[in-house]
Amino acid sequence: MTMPRPAAPLYPALVERWGTEPAGVVLICEHASNAMGDAGLGGDLGLSAAARMDHVAWDIGALGLARELGQRLAVTAGGAALVHAPLSRLVYDLNRAPDHPTAMPAKSEIHDMPGNRNLTPTQRMERVARVYAPFHAGLCAEIARHIAQGRRPALIAVHSFTPIFHGQRREVEFGVIHDDDTALTMAVLEAARGAPLITRLNEPYSAAGDVTHTIRVHAVPNRLANTMLEIRNDLIADAPAQAAMAERLAPILAQALAKTGALAWAC
Amino acid sequence: MTMPRPAAPLYPALVERWGTEPAGVVLICEHASNAMGDAGLGGDLGLSAAARMDHVAWDIGALGLARELGQRLAVTAGGAALVHAPLSRLVYDLNRAPDHPTAMPAKSEIHDMPGNRNLTPTQRMERVARVYAPFHAGLCAEIARHIAQGRRPALIAVHSFTPIFHGQRREVEFGVIHDDDTALTMAVLEAARGAPLITRLNEPYSAAGDVTHTIRVHAVPNRLANTMLEIRNDLIADAPAQAAMAERLAPILAQALAKTGALAWAC
Repeated sequence: MTMPRPAAPLYPALVERWGTEPAGVVLICEHASNAMGDAGLGGDLGLSAAARMDHVAWDIGALGLARELGQRLAVTAGGAALVHAPLSRLVYDLNRAPDHPTAMPAKSEIHDMPGNRNLTPTQRMERVARVYAPFHAGLCAEIARHIAQGRRPALIAVHSFTPIFHGQRREVEFGVIHDDDTALTMAVLEAARGAPLITRLNEPYSAAGDVTHTIRVHAVPNRLANTMLEIRNDLIADAPAQAAMAERLAPILAQALAKTGALAWAC
Repeated sequence: MTMPRPAAPLYPALVERWGTEPAGVVLICEHASNAMGDAGLGGDLGLSAAARMDHVAWDIGALGLARELGQRLAVTAGGAALVHAPLSRLVYDLNRAPDHPTAMPAKSEIHDMPGNRNLTPTQRMERVARVYAPFHAGLCAEIARHIAQGRRPALIAVHSFTPIFHGQRREVEFGVIHDDDTALTMAVLEAARGAPLITRLNEPYSAAGDVTHTIRVHAVPNRLANTMLEIRNDLIADAPAQAAMAERLAPILAQALAKTGALAWAC
């Protein structure tokens, strides 16, 4: 039989666009928000207000940076879109498959999330149906919108990381992470060579940890150029810093996109 | 800025389920229907009533066969789901990317579709937003539902083909088509060896024609066992024939699924 859809509200992907269409770049920000869901999604998960402001709940500064990048890439890439998350990754980490251990984590670095402890299959399914599926549906639709207009956009995921993790200081400022198709990542590294930024390949994370779920689901099947950016969050803590970082990174990305031919109207 | 969603109705995937959850198999029928869309989607596309009943509009018998298979595989695979299309492939071929030449074809075999001639980018985008994106969103959500419950289901696409194409008689009765991961396809071929069916690998189509779009988008990124079945439509023309064919194919599929380990609870 056909099953009824859940009556509870869905949390779809949020979409912003700049410049002309079809876009040459779709930016993605899976960890944009620290908002918690309704009671059916575990409410505040038992997290303190302080913990909700911490990097465990979201990628601090990433959404602001992504918006600044979008405005600039709209010019150099001939149109840009941004697809971002409406809820905290602690409700559901949109860059993880539904069976990944950290999709709905009960513990993250030094914080406990009591509301994620011992989730039943029904509770997990509800998170998937109301948070994971609507986000990826929206991202799929946004990508398809540009492909339908004759252009396969590059996908660039924008993330941030904490300067201190489990007590260890991280020196890297700008990490560029690749999945199976390394072309755009290597071009970004090459373009960043002269920049006054401590830039590293596959740091502080790599695809080995299954952290490139979004790219695998959306970029690889459509043969879209792709990469994942990680910026240390102390460098993008407020709006002026985000704009300044975008001013440095946008030309690097534009140069890399041009070099890999990702901006061609290939269809 | 955030763009408004289209006000016109969407045509989401239709989902049916049998047996327990999480399912071991998700069947897919992208060409299940010969229904035409509303005026915004081109109405009847200028097609005659006779052409709408022809194989160009849909895979004759495929939905009936898929339902019969679902009921049987629910027992042997420990639960089965079926995701099928609400509209004709002539409105949008859900097994094609939005820039594929046959996604919204103006001509198919011997039939012209005047309503698909010279589509504007806006018209193409509307088909994508209202037909393609909702189908794949529904399929993604269905797959995620089972993964969230600890099981990665096998994906089996069920298609049919016409016995006579461009005047040529086709001898093959049962085609099994693979994408990059050949394991389940080869296991089905092996299991079908003793069956009184003219069975062929990658006939009458192969992945070289980009006809495995659904598998590439949904199976490959999630590492799901997958294959695509093609049954000659004169063998599944009515309900009794569909049930009889399912009775022959279901044990073959169950044996292949068991052999490849696709039914394991791997997560």
